[in-house]
Amino acid sequence: MIPKKIGERTLTFEKNIYWRGAAAVAGTKEGKGPLANTFDEVLGDDTLGEKSYEKAEVQLFLRAVNRAVDKSGETMDTVGCFLGGDLLNQIISASFSARMLQLPYIGLYGACSTMTESMMVASMFLDGGFFDTVACATGSHFATAERQYRFPLEMATQRPPTAQWTVTGAGAAVMSTKGGSIRLTQATIGRVVDYGITDANNMGAAMAPAAIDTLTAHFEDTGNKPSDYDLILTGDLGCVGSTIVCEKMREKGYPMKDVHRDAGCMIYSEDQDVHAGGSGCGCIAVVLNGAIHRAMLEKRYRRVLAMATGALLSPTTSLQGESIPGIAHAIVLEV
Amino acid sequence: MIPKKIGERTLTFEKNIYWRGAAAVAGTKEGKGPLANTFDEVLGDDTLGEKSYEKAEVQLFLRAVNRAVDKSGETMDTVGCFLGGDLLNQIISASFSARMLQLPYIGLYGACSTMTESMMVASMFLDGGFFDTVACATGSHFATAERQYRFPLEMATQRPPTAQWTVTGAGAAVMSTKGGSIRLTQATIGRVVDYGITDANNMGAAMAPAAIDTLTAHFEDTGNKPSDYDLILTGDLGCVGSTIVCEKMREKGYPMKDVHRDAGCMIYSEDQDVHAGGSGCGCIAVVLNGAIHRAMLEKRYRRVLAMATGALLSPTTSLQGESIPGIAHAIVLEV
Repeated sequence: MIPKKIGERTLTFEKNIYWRGAAAVAGTKEGKGPLANTFDEVLGDDTLGEKSYEKAEVQLFLRAVNRAVDKSGETMDTVGCFLGGDLLNQIISASFSARMLQLPYIGLYGACSTMTESMMVASMFLDGGFFDTVACATGSHFATAERQYRFPLEMATQRPPTAQWTVTGAGAAVMSTKGGSIRLTQATIGRVVDYGITDANNMGAAMAPAAIDTLTAHFEDTGNKPSDYDLILTGDLGCVGSTIVCEKMREKGYPMKDVHRDAGCMIYSEDQDVHAGGSGCGCIAVVLNGAIHRAMLEKRYRRVLAMATGALLSPTTSLQGESIPGIAHAIVLEV
Repeated sequence: MIPKKIGERTLTFEKNIYWRGAAAVAGTKEGKGPLANTFDEVLGDDTLGEKSYEKAEVQLFLRAVNRAVDKSGETMDTVGCFLGGDLLNQIISASFSARMLQLPYIGLYGACSTMTESMMVASMFLDGGFFDTVACATGSHFATAERQYRFPLEMATQRPPTAQWTVTGAGAAVMSTKGGSIRLTQATIGRVVDYGITDANNMGAAMAPAAIDTLTAHFEDTGNKPSDYDLILTGDLGCVGSTIVCEKMREKGYPMKDVHRDAGCMIYSEDQDVHAGGSGCGCIAVVLNGAIHRAMLEKRYRRVLAMATGALLSPTTSLQGESIPGIAHAIVLEV
């Protein structure tokens, strides 16, 4: 690791940390979107035959982990640790998956930033020499998230135009020092940033300040420009948040609109009627571990800055009048 | 780091990782218990003047972090990263504290295992050379936990004898490579273990299998015996869980009753009517960062195995008939 100066938030890894395996399992609606053929599996039934959507979410999560480990050429016996988290109260999808996997487990919570949070922490563990292979996963389910954060689906509440649609899907990444063709070379840790947005139906705007904070720290720490990347992937700012972030970054001297794409804007087509785009831990998880992993293997992208953003609210904080803080963790992936 | 054999879960740190600062802030009931004079601060009012108990919990959390950083001789500018988590949905106490602290932040969730989980992850980050100082914290509040996990206090629901009492308190630890008198030398990562307990009023029994699993892994990996430690501190098995764990460990050839104490059994006196003892993230957090840190500074204990245990349930999983999995992360502290 290159020693950091005080105030720097970007870590540069000494060892070669490989993104050795990746898998994306997506729901039925996501399977009808433009990225359908980049997923490893598309569900035929979003209940997966389970009695509750929460139980289905655990199965979704497990399928992604099992597929990623298989694809990496590893087995559960050679994975040293499992890192995961999700949107449900007490991160039960991750913890109940860990109950099945029987791996040493560290639960993380970063809301929708969990995918890059887990890949960053895994890389720190690998660079530190504690393991040679670590599995990371996160996911979300439209039906569980809606009833926990907003309203039961049965109420058929009308959604405002700024609302995003929680992705049903889970993504998993197997990080390893053993080899691979894509490396995770740097990571920029997020801070909690809050500009006072209180509308839980406008997450993009709530997370935009954290995204701008982490992107600015990344470019300042590394001296890189947006154009040094083939792709800056965010998730899930949606259409509203993406516009804010690109505009503010341009003002700060980092024009990034030409290389920027947001997972929330990529996953559904316009005729799927999702308003401001996809959201949920599973959104960037399935886009990154599906489309982006494939594109990098095929060398269509050689250098990607991937940044997942999370809104750190709870239904209780919203009811108590708190604003919505955000966080964003960024990782650099290179072929 | 000494290379591990496959299946080993105990990490041995190469660098000297110091438990450089510690602080415990406790509630009014805890301040009337036997450990009162080991806390850095006892609240006069559990609301801390805030409009809700949730807002009070954030202030409690912040006070512990600020005091620990002050006592360590560091400032917020020299702390590289903040690791925290708590029991509330979406770990809002930790995240809202991070909003005030403005440090790079990684949210963790391990239920009541969060204190040792965060100190273990911090030590991995420090040993890996990513930071020289990391702040760790967790806490809980009786009033927020009861209404989220069980019933609103206003209902005055009668508690069964196996029930534990959620501690109002927060503990923080500042881990650093810069020096100190107590070192964190080893850590054993937990797995999620579930023996099928479904009674949310009997957490001690639900967490006992995970405690036994991690303790057994620790003794097998290191070759140590319980008597190699001056103290094996668990938290929070309570009286019911402690009896199960000591009995099973004796059967496995690791008799530990003479050196074992449980934070949940230490924090209240018998006449405080808490049934099976204290619980909550804050319980072992205030005992470890209060009484145990002081005892080690005074060399009354020279080698301590501290293991926090977490019950990975949510109200939703209980309602859906799931059993309660547990996890336990252990750390070795040495003068």
